[in-house]
Amino acid sequence: MSDKTVAILGATGVVGTQMLVSLEERGFPVGRLVPLASARSVEAGRVVRFRGEDVPVELARPEAFEGVDIVLGAASDELAGKLLPEAVKRGATCVDNSHAFRLDADVPLVVPEINAADIAGNNGIVSNPNCATIIGLVPLWPLHQAAGLTRLVVSTYQAASGAGMAGLRELERETRAVAADEPMGQTDPFAHQLAHNLIPQIGGFDEMGYTSEEMKMQNEGRKIMHLPDLRVNCTCVRVPVARSHSESITCEFTRPLSVDQARELLEAAPGVRVVDDPAAGVYPMPLDTSDQDLIWVGRLRRDLSAPEGASALTFWCCGDQIRKGAATNAVQIAEHLL
Amino acid sequence: MSDKTVAILGATGVVGTQMLVSLEERGFPVGRLVPLASARSVEAGRVVRFRGEDVPVELARPEAFEGVDIVLGAASDELAGKLLPEAVKRGATCVDNSHAFRLDADVPLVVPEINAADIAGNNGIVSNPNCATIIGLVPLWPLHQAAGLTRLVVSTYQAASGAGMAGLRELERETRAVAADEPMGQTDPFAHQLAHNLIPQIGGFDEMGYTSEEMKMQNEGRKIMHLPDLRVNCTCVRVPVARSHSESITCEFTRPLSVDQARELLEAAPGVRVVDDPAAGVYPMPLDTSDQDLIWVGRLRRDLSAPEGASALTFWCCGDQIRKGAATNAVQIAEHLL
Repeated sequence: MSDKTVAILGATGVVGTQMLVSLEERGFPVGRLVPLASARSVEAGRVVRFRGEDVPVELARPEAFEGVDIVLGAASDELAGKLLPEAVKRGATCVDNSHAFRLDADVPLVVPEINAADIAGNNGIVSNPNCATIIGLVPLWPLHQAAGLTRLVVSTYQAASGAGMAGLRELERETRAVAADEPMGQTDPFAHQLAHNLIPQIGGFDEMGYTSEEMKMQNEGRKIMHLPDLRVNCTCVRVPVARSHSESITCEFTRPLSVDQARELLEAAPGVRVVDDPAAGVYPMPLDTSDQDLIWVGRLRRDLSAPEGASALTFWCCGDQIRKGAATNAVQIAEHLL
Repeated sequence: MSDKTVAILGATGVVGTQMLVSLEERGFPVGRLVPLASARSVEAGRVVRFRGEDVPVELARPEAFEGVDIVLGAASDELAGKLLPEAVKRGATCVDNSHAFRLDADVPLVVPEINAADIAGNNGIVSNPNCATIIGLVPLWPLHQAAGLTRLVVSTYQAASGAGMAGLRELERETRAVAADEPMGQTDPFAHQLAHNLIPQIGGFDEMGYTSEEMKMQNEGRKIMHLPDLRVNCTCVRVPVARSHSESITCEFTRPLSVDQARELLEAAPGVRVVDDPAAGVYPMPLDTSDQDLIWVGRLRRDLSAPEGASALTFWCCGDQIRKGAATNAVQIAEHLL
């Protein structure tokens, strides 16, 4: 396996920075690293740290992809939409974390634990799913394989880092303001104060009253699991937590699935850690699941509201939004490209 | 209407303190106030503030209820279970916020907007429901009356004040510790750090894996709405918010109910404020719903996961846990006792 030239589009952001860490941690065969960023970052002389060395960022523009084998995209929908086709033209294969291509028919949307086989059908771009979608789907997949998933009701508790470095910093700033009882001032990138509050909006609203984030769980979930008729109802809420998303999930199946069977399946599932000894106060929490790659699953129990005879379960899961929700999943996809 | 002698059991706690405010605000005809508390509070010379005057607390013991007309209970299950029967023996009628009597067959469990008529059947004790139950049920009731509620899937986002004054103070302390990047130390009354975290446990666990708080939504909801077969699946989560609970609710009905019909019903419902202009960033949030008495409802939309032809909706609501979730509801019940 020869070393690859790897570009990171958006290398100075929170996901781009984590991609560098994940490439290192997982021993990805990087021959040359090409960190790409905006003119502002380049003019500011920004560097990124990789394998103990400072690498200067270069300007993100079509010519930067000459000679690049693999691009990891951690930029906005707009920038990804504009630049990644230029990378493909120049022979690179892209793993993109933006929403730009996720639902395109000729772009695989991949969680490697679920549909790594779809990667083979790519035309130069493989999309990385939305963070909340990945975190919910990793534990749902083994349950679906055993029992046939038909319906999901999901309420999310999503971390500040979903809004990038600016979101993380704003939560820190607001926390200091609340602690000091100081005026809150502007709350960008959030529409409202997040510290000691909850914001039941992530993304824009459609005509039904769902947010774009909520519809991703349905539309991306259907594509990734090859379940075009999966019925999904999602409520996405931003919570004052740094970087780990949590989800309360109720799921219905066509075939019987007991709590004990589900626990066995989850214990054997890749990417999952069962953390479920509630009587001892042991269950997944965002603080414990930050800065690691597994999806922690707990509070596994029968859905008491399901109709008589229905097969339905409820559980709670947490996962790091920056790692498995974004950077690690992208690097895992890139490993399949090798 | 003659003035009443009103005792508050647990007058120095967060709910007892709010009961004093609610009695004043609502002009309850209090002739004499008897604030009752533990020996520790009495020995410390604690007073409560009522109508501009300091009233010394008295020791909570059976004899303290002599001559009392109405008792508002804001104490532990244990203390309520021991002392309120003594108050009843002495001729008082009790409105109790503890769990001690809620499911007793001869004790009405009341949300006045829903089942005020049940108060008439009391034998000296009327129970005030759990805070999360009240906050969810107030908006569900008009929907049920129109369409026949059959199933609830609820995920809660519950405030620190649900753990009393100690919970509120601990969130404040932890927020300062996080802001200053100091060691967290003991987190009592919480089992884990709450600031920048979520704790998916409120109360103890049953053999199915549900918490006592989660089963209250089912068991109390069934009793209050006179729906013994209502199917409820609840996931209760403590969040780093001060005093307002939020709930993500999916509900199924026997009869058709459109989003527009539901909105009209909620706009006309007592105790509810519809706050639902999502495109303008307007929806209920715990920060905005603190220290007022209405349940704010928004994010009202069709449940996309419901089976074809089913009648199902999803919404988000927030309400002050100390006021309508406890003190105000109790004072409303007491008004019906007059």
